[in-house]
Amino acid sequence: MNDNPNEPTPLNDLGEFGLIDRLTSKIELKNSTTELGVGDDAALIKNEKALTVVSTDLLVEGVHFDLLYTPLKHLGYKAVVVNLSDIYAMNVMPQHITVSIAVSNRMSVEALEEIYEGINLACEFYGVDLIGGDTTSSLSGTMISITALGQAEEGKVVKRSGAQENDLICVTGDLGAAFAGLQILEREKSVFKDNTKIQPDFSGKDYILERQLKPEARKDLIEFFTKEGIVPSAMIDISDGLSSELIHLASSSNVGIQIYEDKIPLDASTITTCEELNLNPITAALNGGEDYELLFTVPLEYHETIKKDPLLTIIGHVTDKASGNHMVATGTESLIELTAQGWQH
Amino acid sequence: MNDNPNEPTPLNDLGEFGLIDRLTSKIELKNSTTELGVGDDAALIKNEKALTVVSTDLLVEGVHFDLLYTPLKHLGYKAVVVNLSDIYAMNVMPQHITVSIAVSNRMSVEALEEIYEGINLACEFYGVDLIGGDTTSSLSGTMISITALGQAEEGKVVKRSGAQENDLICVTGDLGAAFAGLQILEREKSVFKDNTKIQPDFSGKDYILERQLKPEARKDLIEFFTKEGIVPSAMIDISDGLSSELIHLASSSNVGIQIYEDKIPLDASTITTCEELNLNPITAALNGGEDYELLFTVPLEYHETIKKDPLLTIIGHVTDKASGNHMVATGTESLIELTAQGWQH
Repeated sequence: MNDNPNEPTPLNDLGEFGLIDRLTSKIELKNSTTELGVGDDAALIKNEKALTVVSTDLLVEGVHFDLLYTPLKHLGYKAVVVNLSDIYAMNVMPQHITVSIAVSNRMSVEALEEIYEGINLACEFYGVDLIGGDTTSSLSGTMISITALGQAEEGKVVKRSGAQENDLICVTGDLGAAFAGLQILEREKSVFKDNTKIQPDFSGKDYILERQLKPEARKDLIEFFTKEGIVPSAMIDISDGLSSELIHLASSSNVGIQIYEDKIPLDASTITTCEELNLNPITAALNGGEDYELLFTVPLEYHETIKKDPLLTIIGHVTDKASGNHMVATGTESLIELTAQGWQH
Repeated sequence: MNDNPNEPTPLNDLGEFGLIDRLTSKIELKNSTTELGVGDDAALIKNEKALTVVSTDLLVEGVHFDLLYTPLKHLGYKAVVVNLSDIYAMNVMPQHITVSIAVSNRMSVEALEEIYEGINLACEFYGVDLIGGDTTSSLSGTMISITALGQAEEGKVVKRSGAQENDLICVTGDLGAAFAGLQILEREKSVFKDNTKIQPDFSGKDYILERQLKPEARKDLIEFFTKEGIVPSAMIDISDGLSSELIHLASSSNVGIQIYEDKIPLDASTITTCEELNLNPITAALNGGEDYELLFTVPLEYHETIKKDPLLTIIGHVTDKASGNHMVATGTESLIELTAQGWQH
């Protein structure tokens, strides 16, 4: 055993059960629907509504995150957020998560605890209970797999498939910032690799770095819909870039899409960073990904309600399928066809 | 693109969305509770009973499986089975799973399809629907994370914590075979490494190899309980070895355990293989793990009902906590203290 409190504790010192005890000791259960949490073969959730909503996501070291510039606490936080985002995208409040982590043997107990600190922080902020999971060693990289669950009444759930012609197309927040943040992190990483004495230059980049390293999910939009009594016709979260999500929504709903370049919400620091890096900020918004904003459609009648909320931007409208998926370019008014782009990490 | 039908297709040829389409095209939904499967931000399950039961497990290459001797189809099958086993261990029928897979870039689309073939086969055999997941590349090894869900009425769920003094302690099937199978696979692997021309010698090992490579979960026990109107007082699945599971059950239930060495069910091929390898078959049963049998306790009144089923063996009884957890050794009648053993892969 490790007797020096200042030295990192090797994972194998605790063994599986000691490790699980240590990691789960700080869990506080908040939801009345949590009947049984960690500690048995399975967790138990009380069904209080008609439907259970389930989503799962996987983050892999070297593909979805780089431990060179990703603080472990942020990593845990982000892993939860990207999963909750999928539940919010159904217009549902998530209540429970399970977490499976594979960590390199070289990682210390303290490092793993930092990941869990981020996980617990996200659970607290979003009112979610951690009810189960699995922790194991890995011969290679770290991987986090999270499953998020929520409950909903039948008529409240919003799929991708309900958009109707003439509906307004709206997004929350601003787009492209997470991608701009990633470019800065990658730039400073390569500078650091060439000369490890040079300190990274992150001045003025706080916002875009936070968007990449510690994104938030749009719980506030679901609260807004509840308050205003709005049920969107279709919704999807923006994880792979606006363009690809618009195409998913159009294809599921059997409609066409028309958006306007000059309506796409961009933060000032996204624009300046993209200019600095010789990138088009609109491209960052369309294809960058990882913004975790919500994209939704609502009937025209909600125009005024949507417009008055500074969180929301109307970027276009739904057309018929035959018209295809297009963006109206600023200035020229020409139609640019939207193309899908999945991961090509 | 790959135009030769005999050559493996690189994963990157299809892209994320093409790959997901190809892997999910064969999914057949069977359960009336599945309202929405793969294809949206989240899946939807109809809540027909009072509780949702959730469990999650993670299998990591090099830790939980070795691709040198694990057929990909078996790997997919086993990944599902180990998760369903946790739901059965709550006396509940699983109905849904989500699957997250990270695969090495070197793996072909066809290889990934083989894993999914095994997953689909298990879904079919156990009557479970695959309703969501995530597929991503990995810079290193392959990992599979599965979450299994079921539904249950409040009074039917069995936890680890309900065992009472004088209850019978019972197990399904036989123990130690999966561990014996693993030893044979590891032996032949090292022979093969020394001389790749020597063919592996697996004669007479069919049963123990199948127990390691393609285990089954004990759906039949849950059916037996339903038919006989029995609700066990406590239950746990045997994934880490009988000894460690007995200790979990005793600790959760605040009781002591007494089992009898000569009652532990062993298959003949487990005994002969252990003798061949100079191992004690009882040690394989106590500490080997991966049997995925069920360990449960029932009140004495069910003695005759349990005894008449050839699937079940009564191995001991529940004592008071002060008596501790012991095994009565064959012949000597001396008490051997049971000790826990988690993973030390």
